[in-house]
This record gives sequence, C-alpha cells and structure tokens, in this order.
Amino acid sequence: MSKNLTKRSVDYSKWYNELVVKADLAETSAVRGCMIIKPYGYAIWEKMQAELDKMFKATGHQNAYFPLFVPKSLFEAEEQNAEGFAKECAVVTHYRLKNNPDKKGELMVDPEAKLEEPLVVRPTSEAIIWNTYKNWIQSYRDLPILINQWANVVRWEMRTRLFLRTAEFLWQEGHTAHATEQEALDEARQMNQVYADFVERFMAIPVIQGLKSPAERFAGAVETFCIEALMQDGKALQAGTSHFLGQNFAKAFDVKFATQSGSLDYVWATSWGVSTRLMGALIMTHSDDNGLVLPPQLAPDQVVIVPIYRSEEERQAVADKAEALKKQLEAHQIRVKFDNRDNFKPGFKFNEYELKGVPLRIAIGPKDLEKQQVELARRDTLTKQFVAENELIPVVVELLETIQEALYVKALAFREEHITVVDDFDHFQEVLHKKGGFIAAHWDGTEATEQAIKNATKATIRCIPLDAPEEAGSCVFSGKPSTRRVLFAKAY
Amino acid sequence: MSKNLTKRSVDYSKWYNELVVKADLAETSAVRGCMIIKPYGYAIWEKMQAELDKMFKATGHQNAYFPLFVPKSLFEAEEQNAEGFAKECAVVTHYRLKNNPDKKGELMVDPEAKLEEPLVVRPTSEAIIWNTYKNWIQSYRDLPILINQWANVVRWEMRTRLFLRTAEFLWQEGHTAHATEQEALDEARQMNQVYADFVERFMAIPVIQGLKSPAERFAGAVETFCIEALMQDGKALQAGTSHFLGQNFAKAFDVKFATQSGSLDYVWATSWGVSTRLMGALIMTHSDDNGLVLPPQLAPDQVVIVPIYRSEEERQAVADKAEALKKQLEAHQIRVKFDNRDNFKPGFKFNEYELKGVPLRIAIGPKDLEKQQVELARRDTLTKQFVAENELIPVVVELLETIQEALYVKALAFREEHITVVDDFDHFQEVLHKKGGFIAAHWDGTEATEQAIKNATKATIRCIPLDAPEEAGSCVFSGKPSTRRVLFAKAY
Repeated sequence: MSKNLTKRSVDYSKWYNELVVKADLAETSAVRGCMIIKPYGYAIWEKMQAELDKMFKATGHQNAYFPLFVPKSLFEAEEQNAEGFAKECAVVTHYRLKNNPDKKGELMVDPEAKLEEPLVVRPTSEAIIWNTYKNWIQSYRDLPILINQWANVVRWEMRTRLFLRTAEFLWQEGHTAHATEQEALDEARQMNQVYADFVERFMAIPVIQGLKSPAERFAGAVETFCIEALMQDGKALQAGTSHFLGQNFAKAFDVKFATQSGSLDYVWATSWGVSTRLMGALIMTHSDDNGLVLPPQLAPDQVVIVPIYRSEEERQAVADKAEALKKQLEAHQIRVKFDNRDNFKPGFKFNEYELKGVPLRIAIGPKDLEKQQVELARRDTLTKQFVAENELIPVVVELLETIQEALYVKALAFREEHITVVDDFDHFQEVLHKKGGFIAAHWDGTEATEQAIKNATKATIRCIPLDAPEEAGSCVFSGKPSTRRVLFAKAY
Repeated sequence: MSKNLTKRSVDYSKWYNELVVKADLAETSAVRGCMIIKPYGYAIWEKMQAELDKMFKATGHQNAYFPLFVPKSLFEAEEQNAEGFAKECAVVTHYRLKNNPDKKGELMVDPEAKLEEPLVVRPTSEAIIWNTYKNWIQSYRDLPILINQWANVVRWEMRTRLFLRTAEFLWQEGHTAHATEQEALDEARQMNQVYADFVERFMAIPVIQGLKSPAERFAGAVETFCIEALMQDGKALQAGTSHFLGQNFAKAFDVKFATQSGSLDYVWATSWGVSTRLMGALIMTHSDDNGLVLPPQLAPDQVVIVPIYRSEEERQAVADKAEALKKQLEAHQIRVKFDNRDNFKPGFKFNEYELKGVPLRIAIGPKDLEKQQVELARRDTLTKQFVAENELIPVVVELLETIQEALYVKALAFREEHITVVDDFDHFQEVLHKKGGFIAAHWDGTEATEQAIKNATKATIRCIPLDAPEEAGSCVFSGKPSTRRVLFAKAY
C-alpha cells in the first residue's frame, strides 16, 4: 500500500484531507457538505460515544430522543438562538414527491403537498426540547431534568471539511433544567469538566478550560464554557462547549415552576455538546507524515499481527502461533487483529497499519518461531524491539499505557511551547504569523476590540481561561486597562 | 399513582395509547406525527440496540454512517423504490431562513436560498448507499461489504401512532453487497434469522419467519423475508424485514465488479431493518390492564426495592437493609432501583412500578427486618411471596429467568391458539371477525386475489411461512389450485 501522503510541512491542510480519506475514516458524499463516515472512522466514534455515554450516566443523565424537525414558530421563539442559526437552516417545505409529467422517470416536488408551516431540520434542539419541558415541569419536584440526546444535526455551512465542518454531523446534546441559577451554573461547569476529562484521558489531547467572550458565545446562552485544544499547525480547535442558558429558553417558552416556598419562577437551563468534530481533533493532534496515530484507548485495533512466511508450511506454523498469541492478548481485554490475508505482502500491510494508526504491530516469521520471539513495533515512535513470547503480554499491556501517556505528554509539550505571552500588537502579529499557537494577551473586554483584532489578524479570543490569574495590564490592541490575559488564536 | 388505564377488553387501541404515555415511554410532539421518546422508553430501546448491535457484529457487520439527505436525482434512480416512497417524502427545498420584513420577530424561508436540486430526507438509504458503494467496489476482492447504520428516517405517514407508525422513527438498516446471488440470498436469510433470535430471546415474542407476497414486498426488492408477531388483540405486527435486492440497485447505480474469472458483473445486494416499532410490539405483546410488563432481559430496572416505614428511625433501618441488598443483587449483574423517595407512599410506588412493568418488586418493612425476610412480587403474575434474606439472590436470579421464559411461553400459547386453518371464505370472514389472529389458508398466488381479499376483509397476507409444508389445495377465495397455505391477518 503506497501512502503518498502530502507532508505536513508542505501543506498541513492537504495532509489532513488526504489522511482522512486514505486511512478510511470518512469521505465526501453526493450531498453537498455531508460526509460518509466509513466503518473504520465510525468504529473510533463508537468508542468515543461509549466512554462519553458512561460519563454522562455516571453524572446522573439519561438519554432520550426528540424530533429531527422544529416547526418554524418554535424555532423563532428564542430570538438570539433563532438569529444565530437562521442563516444555516435546511428547511423542509413539502411532504411529497410526484411523477414529473414533463420528464418520464423523474420525480418532482408536489406543489400540492406544501406544509402549512415550514419545518427546520434541527441545527440544535433547545427550541423543540424546551417546548416539551414546558409540559414536564410544574413544580420543583419535577426538577432537575438531566437529559442527553445522541443525534444528527444540520447546519448549512458554505465551506466544509470532513469531520471539522460538515453540513450534517453527529453529536450529543445535553439539555438540563434546574430550580436555581447556582445549580444550572454548576451543571454547565461540571459537564465542561467531563468533556475535559474525556478528551485528556481518552483522546490524549490536553485542553484549556475557559469561558467564551460574548462574541463567541452560543446564540441564546448567558455564558459558554469551552475546552480548547491546539493542533500541530498552531491553530486552535474548540473541542466542546457547555452553556449556561440562564432563563432565556424558559422565558421564550414560558416554562415556570412552583418553588418550594410556593412562588412561581422561570426554570434555569444548560445545554452542552460535543460532535464528530472531535474526530478532526484526534486526527490532527497526534498523526504524522506516515499517517494516523491513534491513542490506544480509542483504537479499534490496539495490536495488529502480521505474519511473515514463504511456504505454505511456514504460513501455517506462523498462523498457529499468531492465533495463540491473539487469544492470549484478547484474554487481557486487548483488541487484536490478525491479518492473515494471503494476497498482500507484509510490507504492504505494515504501510496500511501505519496509515491507520494501529498503536502496536507484531510481526512473526519462521525465525521468530525458532527463537520464540516476536518483533514489536510502536506506531507513535516507529521504534521496534524483539520480545520473548512469554513476556509479550506484560510488555504489550504496559506499552499500550505508555503510548497513551506519551501521546498526551507530547501534545502537552507542544501546546505549552505554543502559548506565548504577548504585550504589544506588533509582537502579536509576528507570533501569529511565524509561530502560531495561543497568544496570552490583555484585552479590554470590548467586542469592538475583539472584532478589530479579528479583522486585522483572523485571530479570535478562544477563551478566557478559568484558571487565568488576576493581573493588571493594558489591552494589547487598545491599550485600555485589563485585569487578566485571555487566549487568542486562529482557529478551526 | 392512580393508573386509570382503559381496559384492553374495552378499547385495546385506547389502552395502548394511554399506556405508552402513562408508563413514560413516549409522547407526541409539536411536530405532526413525530414522537418524543422519553428516558424510560429510550432506556429500553438502548438495551435492544445493544443486543442487536452485538449480534450484527458477531455476524461480521460493521457500523458506518451515511447522509440524512438524498438528492432527488439519486432517489429516483431505482424506479420501484422511488415509486414506493415518493408519496411520503419530506423534502428540503431551501437552506436559509431570513427575517420576515412584514412580521417583526418572525422568520421566513428565504426565497433566494432555494436549492438547485431538492433533497429528500431519507425514508431508507439504499439510494445514497449504492451511489457510494459504486466507488468502493471494483473487484471481487472488495466484496462482500457488510455494513449497518443506526439512524433516523422519515416517512410522512398520514395516520400515526406512537412507536407503531411515526413520521420520524429510529432504526438500523443493514446494506450489504455480494459477488453472488447465493451469497446475498444467504445473507438476507441469515439476518432474518438474527431478527427472529433477537425478538424471541430478548423480547420474549414468538415470531413466524416467512416471505412476503409480491404486493407486500419492499419497493425495489426481489424477495422480502420477514418476521411476523401476533398482538393480544389478534392483529399481526411485522417486526422486521430482510430484503434480497437482487441486482436492482447495482443496475440503477451501475455498480459492476470484476469477477474472479475476469468478467464484469453487477453486484448482488441485501438490506434489512428493524425500528422503534419493535417497542410497540414489546408493549402490546406482554402488557396487561395494570400496565406494562417487561421481559427481564430488556427491563431498565429488573428489580425495584420499595421501603415501608413510619418513623424516621424505621426509615433508616429499612434503607440500610435495602442498600445492602441492592449491592448484593448488583454484584450478580442485576439491575436494581431503590426508591427511597419520602414524598410518595408505598402504595403509590407499587402502582407506579406495576405501570412501568418492573419484573420484580421487593418490599421491606420493619417486620421483615425482624424476620430477616422480604416480600417479593412478580409483575407478570402479580403473585407475592416472602423470601428469606439469605435466599434472595438465588431466588431473584432464578425468577428473572423464569419470568423471561414464562412471558415467551404465554405469548406462544396465545399465538398458537390464534392460528386457524380455514378452507372457505365465509369461515375466513367469521374467524377474522370473531377470533382474529392468523388464518392459514390456501391462496392462488395472484395479486388480484390478494387485493380482493383485502378489499373485502382488510386482511392481508402477512407471510408465506418458510416452514409451510407443501400441501395441495384450492384458494380460499378463487378456488384455484394452490400448493401451500399462507398466513392472512389484519395487521398494524
């Protein structure tokens, strides 16, 4: 298998697009901006889903399912939210096709089947869900409601890229309802923390937790918490967001509850989501010029065994050994693939599994059988070693942990090297241009300044880190006073 | 909790509708014909998904994801399929909303954002998938392709019922591609068998495997295998279908492959699916006038513990015991809920869990503590017994198996009693009217006769059972010769 991957240093963007397709993760479809997630890519997404789902349930959430469509009148009820998404809504206007009388064999939209009210394909589900919660909530006893939904959503983006920005994507969206402001705020913070834990522990991607500036907030939110990651090309990627929605949706949908003291109050809300965009972050953080590099926790196959042989007799002997080792490894909950295809050479297979990012590769040939050893190769470092058969299990178990940790440490070192403290705007532009990454700079807190910086440099405020220390300073652009540094970057 | 369920004998249909809502399974939404699957209902669906997914993977299938939308030109490529679904297609025609200049605060479809080609919201995915497979398949080495997708689909039904017939529903759809007719036929049969195994073993619903008559076949299929179940009101329910698609889609999308001998041939196809409709079958098969009855294999909570107490001291003592028993049961992989809410009486809770179909209920009061026993009640038989604490685990483990089996046996007995062999049309009408169920009758094999019977009785051919013995006879309607009996019934 010839890889012919463009090098990252030559064209990072091209490298990414090629890698996604060549590693069999996803491809474009006949529908503008919509992707096909191929089995190998979907297997990684399934692992991510499974872990997230466990974490959601461990924090008391239940799954449910709400309609794909949102009637226009509900969609427009929360004004900020509606305004934020109106420009990218796919709209269902008809419910029937009929034979085209002018073109045999073709169908046409039946003009007689026009809907009285257009239906928006959900870009997010606050509207339909809060219209439902209205009927579920009468008293404080009905609260909190802690619900998550795994679903597809559609946002009609003009410029799309596989996983990173697609017209349809898969995600989960949590929607919770609370009796108090504090409880809702705590929930929004908690779920942002859950996202950070997941991304760091399973995806091996370090993230910075922070708050969005008003300009970057979710449409309809009072406060947006986020986790921000840094890609190898120095651009930031928003990996998850958790919104404190205040009483905005409760007011838009008139959702009141009887408090414990007997008064009536609007319900407090949160919503939070991560999407198949995380796949883009995973790919871009760890992979190299040879292909994908997967953290063992999320790799569909953690170990691949490639047999080496010439004669049919050798093939059989090696296969017997490979099958035995596979069984032993699987008994230790390790996911193993034995690639016994006879119509591909070992070198082709080596390339293929490098491209697909399998963390460990075991090669076994007749000589190894004699010596009761195998050759073990690490995908992340591309290093090889011989391991005695009877030491294979503990070595593999330990290496999988080592690799998981090493990927995180490497990504963290890169991220730390790419946070630059900057105090004047020339330096800001220079760092952005030459080095990239996050720029920690003072900001005067106004949307006007944020917009001016964006216009001049394309960099936006990625977040106001939750752990940013108070520090008196002056805005890198306007010179006006500031109390803490925020993080700027160009972003996906 | 007052149940006020309509009795099945009074109005089965009303009983069903009330039960779905009162047991917190699902409810109607603001979108015509679309349902909201509530957390309790979704938890059952998740268990069904998890088991089916395991069975699909055990038979070599992988999951993937294809776009929600199908461009009209692809949708109409396979003529039969297009014709079958055209009348119930939701169609996206625009990709943007804008402010309505005439009505402040309202949005309108932006006429300038009309799509060049309308997009059909998938009612099923053969078209978009075969258009994709075209690029994946060149040679016999690329076959078979064994893919499944978990997704939402939309079919604009005029008369809808929660779970049974909704405009949007959740399902899985398998789409496979094969080099030979035989292999595709085997796959279609295999997946029908997987469905039968799942429905019988996990849902405790006996099914009849059969073939659909041409009139009831999936649009675009050469042959449709199905599993048919019988509900308590004597109506049949199609619980799953598996289609042998021949080369219809390969021809429509021009998908050819180089065979091992070097010639070019069209690819053979199958597709197969089950949906949230299975929830309807589950509810209608086992439940009674007191509410839902769930098979233990799919019950989100298999055991509920309800404490009985007067004083706070008693409450604490009972809670300690309940928590200890819960832990012990959970250590045996039993799903247990301890309902320690203080603002509801035991009687209310008893009613609630009866309504929700929890298979076993444990009640513990101060007297039980003294006697080191608990009261154990079975939901299916409504019988109670006292069980010594130290025997609780084995008794519960065995009872859960017993209940699972008992539900199946009961449903099977009902089904067997409701297959009536009929040889003349007066009798046919009488049985249909007075007894319901399946009618095993001879049919002359023509669509005209099938349609005439349907017009006269509303009964359709549910299936030609796979195990129907050859038997010479004459058609119950036309008197023409027939070689085997088929099953007629009124159906959901």
